[in-house]
Amino acid sequence: MISKTDIEDAHKRIKPFIHRTPVLTSASIDEIAGCSVYFKCENFQKVGAFKARGAMNAALSLGPDRVIKGLATHSSGNHAQAIARAGKILGVKSYIVMPRTAPEIKKKGVKGYGGEIFECEPTLAARETTLAEVIKKTGATEIHPFNNYEVMAGQATAAKELFEEAPKLDFLFAPVGGGGLLSGTALAAKYFSPSTKVIAGEPAGSDDAYRSMKSGKIEQAQSQTIADGLLTTLGDKTFPIIKELVSEVITVTDDEIIAAMRLIWERLKIIVEPSCAVPFAAVLKDKEKFAGKNVGVILSGGNVDLGKVSKFFA
Amino acid sequence: MISKTDIEDAHKRIKPFIHRTPVLTSASIDEIAGCSVYFKCENFQKVGAFKARGAMNAALSLGPDRVIKGLATHSSGNHAQAIARAGKILGVKSYIVMPRTAPEIKKKGVKGYGGEIFECEPTLAARETTLAEVIKKTGATEIHPFNNYEVMAGQATAAKELFEEAPKLDFLFAPVGGGGLLSGTALAAKYFSPSTKVIAGEPAGSDDAYRSMKSGKIEQAQSQTIADGLLTTLGDKTFPIIKELVSEVITVTDDEIIAAMRLIWERLKIIVEPSCAVPFAAVLKDKEKFAGKNVGVILSGGNVDLGKVSKFFA
Repeated sequence: MISKTDIEDAHKRIKPFIHRTPVLTSASIDEIAGCSVYFKCENFQKVGAFKARGAMNAALSLGPDRVIKGLATHSSGNHAQAIARAGKILGVKSYIVMPRTAPEIKKKGVKGYGGEIFECEPTLAARETTLAEVIKKTGATEIHPFNNYEVMAGQATAAKELFEEAPKLDFLFAPVGGGGLLSGTALAAKYFSPSTKVIAGEPAGSDDAYRSMKSGKIEQAQSQTIADGLLTTLGDKTFPIIKELVSEVITVTDDEIIAAMRLIWERLKIIVEPSCAVPFAAVLKDKEKFAGKNVGVILSGGNVDLGKVSKFFA
Repeated sequence: MISKTDIEDAHKRIKPFIHRTPVLTSASIDEIAGCSVYFKCENFQKVGAFKARGAMNAALSLGPDRVIKGLATHSSGNHAQAIARAGKILGVKSYIVMPRTAPEIKKKGVKGYGGEIFECEPTLAARETTLAEVIKKTGATEIHPFNNYEVMAGQATAAKELFEEAPKLDFLFAPVGGGGLLSGTALAAKYFSPSTKVIAGEPAGSDDAYRSMKSGKIEQAQSQTIADGLLTTLGDKTFPIIKELVSEVITVTDDEIIAAMRLIWERLKIIVEPSCAVPFAAVLKDKEKFAGKNVGVILSGGNVDLGKVSKFFA
């Protein structure tokens, strides 16, 4: 299990390599949402997403004997860039298995950090087979995008920073894909702000976390949503934490995601990717419940294919 | 003439009513530009643009007898919202003459602050006639968008703040429309950072400042550009200052503006309007000249009609 000290140590370890991202507020957003919203802007994080935290913590935790052979992972996007960046910082190779459908901007990002890309079909099976081959050939260490305790402890540091800056939060929202950010956020709340209820936002078109919470076991994800960072199924390391510590999963439609994304673009004047708008869409969906409260929202990333996303703003 | 004290007084006067906006940097932008760029983010300013500064300074400088009858202006956009907001803060009426072609988002903003809109044809003559009628009827005081010393002193405070935070700047770029921000920026450099050269970015499709600098007299603006905030002709109060203190005007095409805007959206993860991307487009156009230097760029505003602008990102 991840302790309070694990998260504090992770934070110290990664601090020189990450941004302390700003917390933004907006009077007009608060008026629309009916509550006081504190946005933790991980879209301004290195590689454009919170993933820089967990990847860096995991890579720095490996030790010299293992790290020297390189880092490997499979990822649809931001984690891929984060691992490539960690490899570059540590001066070792990085091997990234990516679905051929991954956004072009994310592939470019990986190459920019010197990462070597191995493309595969966009299925979990294809990713895992390809990754196993790469690891066998190179001896590199896999750093899983979410089902990894060092990664989870690293992601927890975003919420830790938010608790240090925002007033006492009644609720804290994070998106859920594989559950790395969500489990880290829930652990951070448990240790640093135990009265804060953690709520997940999830796309209705890939509502496996919602169903998993109902059934009590890990359900499989679908992929019928524009929130392309949240298509993954929960892991056996993330789900137990989420099951224990997360109050609720609120699902939102793609139309609600786009509306929330548009509000963030127009009112906060910042770029967020569709997956990133999911938790704020969840706040807006259930407004009465949060009326007048202090609500934290973790904005997870800002790596958009502008050509794909901007067509929604007709 | 505007003195150093005028700008310092303006800054004290408006401080309670404006944001001290952040200065952003980006390693990837610096790599692309070949210099160290310090972006002063007035897109995060109240009303989404630097115009909040000048309007507030002018309104606060009026004195009780005049302000009580209300504020009036003609403006294609951001200044309109800024005056409406100043009126709301001071508890007086605001009367805004807007061309019927002004972006919907800007009209909505004016109404949101309780401003009364008078629509007219998109010509300077129509604006002035309509405004004269409104003033005759109401007794309100005109606050011109740029050709007004209090407005110019207010706009100067953005550059003043940037000089306080950034390292010694070799160059400072601002956009030029009517010249309120540019003349204020040039005056701020003269008083607070005399070794900084001030350069204007201007759309080639409305290059009246470029031509005015060549001919030595005020030339008329055209309107063949997507930079809809920069369609105005220089004023008799702004031009003499620009002529004396601005080193150079660099013109950029709409394609260059869109490319610069895209870089800012993708790399800085912030929303800027087309007019706002013009000075950075100018930096990129003449890269060799600024290689290795410290370059300030005033990002003027972030009020975009997403439906209109995002179509350029195909």
